[in-house]
Amino acid sequence: MTAYAKLETKIREITRLREIEAISGWDEACMMPSGGGAGRSQALATLTSVIHERLCDPEIGELLNTARADGATLDDWQLANLSNIEREYVEATAIPAELVRATRLATLNCEQVWRQARAANDFQSIRPLLEEVVGLERQTSEALGSAMGLAPYDALLETYEPELRARDIEPVFDDLKQFLPEFLDRVLASQHPAEPLAGPFPVEAQRALCEETMRVLGFDFERGRFDVSHHPFCGGVPDDTRITTRYQEESFLESFMAICHETGHALYQQGLPVGWREQPVGDALGAAIHESQSLLMELQVCRSREFIGFAAPMIRKHFGRDSADGAWTAENLYRAATTVERGFIRVDADEITYPLHVILRFELEQALLDGSLPVRDLPEAWDDAMQNYLGISTRGNDADGCMQDVHWYAGLFGYFPTYTLGALGAAQWFDAARRDLTDLPAEISAGNLRPLLDWLREHVHGRGRQTTMQSLFEEVTGSRLDAGFFKRHLESRYLS
Amino acid sequence: MTAYAKLETKIREITRLREIEAISGWDEACMMPSGGGAGRSQALATLTSVIHERLCDPEIGELLNTARADGATLDDWQLANLSNIEREYVEATAIPAELVRATRLATLNCEQVWRQARAANDFQSIRPLLEEVVGLERQTSEALGSAMGLAPYDALLETYEPELRARDIEPVFDDLKQFLPEFLDRVLASQHPAEPLAGPFPVEAQRALCEETMRVLGFDFERGRFDVSHHPFCGGVPDDTRITTRYQEESFLESFMAICHETGHALYQQGLPVGWREQPVGDALGAAIHESQSLLMELQVCRSREFIGFAAPMIRKHFGRDSADGAWTAENLYRAATTVERGFIRVDADEITYPLHVILRFELEQALLDGSLPVRDLPEAWDDAMQNYLGISTRGNDADGCMQDVHWYAGLFGYFPTYTLGALGAAQWFDAARRDLTDLPAEISAGNLRPLLDWLREHVHGRGRQTTMQSLFEEVTGSRLDAGFFKRHLESRYLS
Repeated sequence: MTAYAKLETKIREITRLREIEAISGWDEACMMPSGGGAGRSQALATLTSVIHERLCDPEIGELLNTARADGATLDDWQLANLSNIEREYVEATAIPAELVRATRLATLNCEQVWRQARAANDFQSIRPLLEEVVGLERQTSEALGSAMGLAPYDALLETYEPELRARDIEPVFDDLKQFLPEFLDRVLASQHPAEPLAGPFPVEAQRALCEETMRVLGFDFERGRFDVSHHPFCGGVPDDTRITTRYQEESFLESFMAICHETGHALYQQGLPVGWREQPVGDALGAAIHESQSLLMELQVCRSREFIGFAAPMIRKHFGRDSADGAWTAENLYRAATTVERGFIRVDADEITYPLHVILRFELEQALLDGSLPVRDLPEAWDDAMQNYLGISTRGNDADGCMQDVHWYAGLFGYFPTYTLGALGAAQWFDAARRDLTDLPAEISAGNLRPLLDWLREHVHGRGRQTTMQSLFEEVTGSRLDAGFFKRHLESRYLS
Repeated sequence: MTAYAKLETKIREITRLREIEAISGWDEACMMPSGGGAGRSQALATLTSVIHERLCDPEIGELLNTARADGATLDDWQLANLSNIEREYVEATAIPAELVRATRLATLNCEQVWRQARAANDFQSIRPLLEEVVGLERQTSEALGSAMGLAPYDALLETYEPELRARDIEPVFDDLKQFLPEFLDRVLASQHPAEPLAGPFPVEAQRALCEETMRVLGFDFERGRFDVSHHPFCGGVPDDTRITTRYQEESFLESFMAICHETGHALYQQGLPVGWREQPVGDALGAAIHESQSLLMELQVCRSREFIGFAAPMIRKHFGRDSADGAWTAENLYRAATTVERGFIRVDADEITYPLHVILRFELEQALLDGSLPVRDLPEAWDDAMQNYLGISTRGNDADGCMQDVHWYAGLFGYFPTYTLGALGAAQWFDAARRDLTDLPAEISAGNLRPLLDWLREHVHGRGRQTTMQSLFEEVTGSRLDAGFFKRHLESRYLS
């Protein structure tokens, strides 16, 4: 057996444990009763430690060296796999086992307490736990940064999207900070408000609409599930991909669009290269590319006039509504799905204000990590930034302010920017797909998503981690990630 | 840190991985889409290997020796914990890692294929996989037997119920083989048939009845769940106990009684000693004791005239039936719940024929393991035994014959006898509880199960593995496990 083959075998075992971790994590979010929380945190922390310990096995380091020396015998996929293993090895060995375990435990506990704290709008009760998480994330980012020769925040970005750096994000976000507020004013001044869509919308009907939509978009139910959780997400593994949504009886657009979004993630996961299951090169490229897939489905496809035209009869059928009622025409549904407004909640935000929510978090999380913003001042800093970017105040309403997202409480720092990079990427992919598939708008109007899915499978999903984000954009679309596609998309949808 | 304390720490980590294994196993049975099967089998096999490897750590052997030498400093629970750890260490080190992994993989695959094979009544398609499982179980039983100084089959029994031996089971089963056939004839000759309970019974109404019944029996939903699976079972962990049932629209008694049964298991699991979570001494004593708890609930409590009298209005409420209809009186429901008949299916069998189903399996599984019965001859041997014990033939109907139970296909050999030992034990516990709790029948008639649950928590559940089966019976009931209680119970219920 060659060093490379031995390496694949060792990594395969680690991937399998990660698959168990993914399913147990999904269970924790979707199925676990509250009494199981304390034990599950300990159990997951132990599993995480076992995985980390295995990844730090010095034999992996030796095999990497030998396999690298034998590089001439490896093909492109194997070489890319080797690089990905190396990256994971460097990341894992950079962080002491005790820190891995402490972080896993602290974030699981913090996330569980956050659920109650947010419901009670009680930031003080979660503050000490968040301080602990921030402290641990700071240690992690410093350890990673020193091993990788990166600034601490860049080291975190690297774990979510290889080769992504703050210095690449800043000019893009500066551009959007210039462009969006004025653009937003113009859209708000000119938009035709949608007639209200009056509920109630029974949960069972919403669920059935979501499931039918998932089928239209191409979700493979033989290799996946659809459930309810506190916060919509996509989890599981490629052959068992699990997405969730949540329901409110008074409105259906949120659960519906959440499912369009998560199905985009799921299609990516289900479309990863079959021949590279259980190897890092067969995994999703990174969080920004993942998000570009979910937002391609949600923003470019499902909120388009073409798709809403197709979906309108389906929506009316599930809720027993009539097209003779002006609120339930395709045109009004399209207006409702593209309504722009200044709001508190990122996940409910339209595509124009969304990047401002992200920029706010990008700036605050860097300040939290470098210590210039103490956790105790977070609610006020959040409120200031909201007033600055969106002109609305969250004072006294931390539940809809700095407690609205699970990310920081779950230890996800450096993740938020990938949402907006994903939105830019989605516009860029869709532009390229439309160029290659001349009938695309007509196919979407007919509810035939197969050509688009095939295109994505070939150009994005099936590529796994065989390349990097910028190279993939360049190769498939002709240019590196470029905010111009997103801005032109907004102009065409909202001001033409 | 003492050797004993170090041992507890090492074992705690292993228990946590087992908890993850339990949840992932539950997920495999209840949630996983079919496409996830192949990957999950590999992932679970890897996790099982990791657990086995950790348990075989030579340091555990050394710590055991040192802790044993320091025994004078340990209390009774710690000493019992030490014995339990020792037992697990001996068991684990007896079986080569490769055999553990191969068995886990083979049984997971076999179980998945069995689901289709049973549905298609196609024994030939599952035969090669079952042969592989039997071969691996034979190797395991021999390896265990040689390490423990036991006969191979006894070594398997030991893994399910400590200190249980075939020579203790045989005279009990011989006694039942004498007693039951003639007793069955007398009951069949004298029973008043129940008026049929005409369906359909919507699944949602059955589910609601089951859930209400679980609450009456004392199931803690803060620390558990209730779902659907192919075969009813109780899984999960003490603070996250998961039971399942299955539904048929034409009948509700099966799902209802399955839930009474599984709730008995769940109450045991939820009642295990809180102070000993994550240590072997805090675990359930063994399969026979576990079954004695499920059958105490199902047979002694829920099929009693008292409980059915209490449950009848609840049942009528969920299905919208009226007590003016003779089929829906408490008396007729009691008759339906205690109907005796010769049938093919063990899990549907009444308490008189049930032990005959078990005895048949006890005899056949020993013959499969020692090679005197080749797997290819199993359908015929099954049919012969059914004709012999129950006077009915399964020729050409292997789905309801040797393919009806998952156990052998999942590698569970040596497990079946614990069902009948559990039925005997249930009668013995109930007799003791009735002696201690003089109002017990009246409390059950009123749907107040709390006194019985408290009694069980004190005398059985809360004891964990601090003692052994026979010692526990002797201590609590005044005698070792004794079939007399079961026979007297049958006489009193069916012939008085």
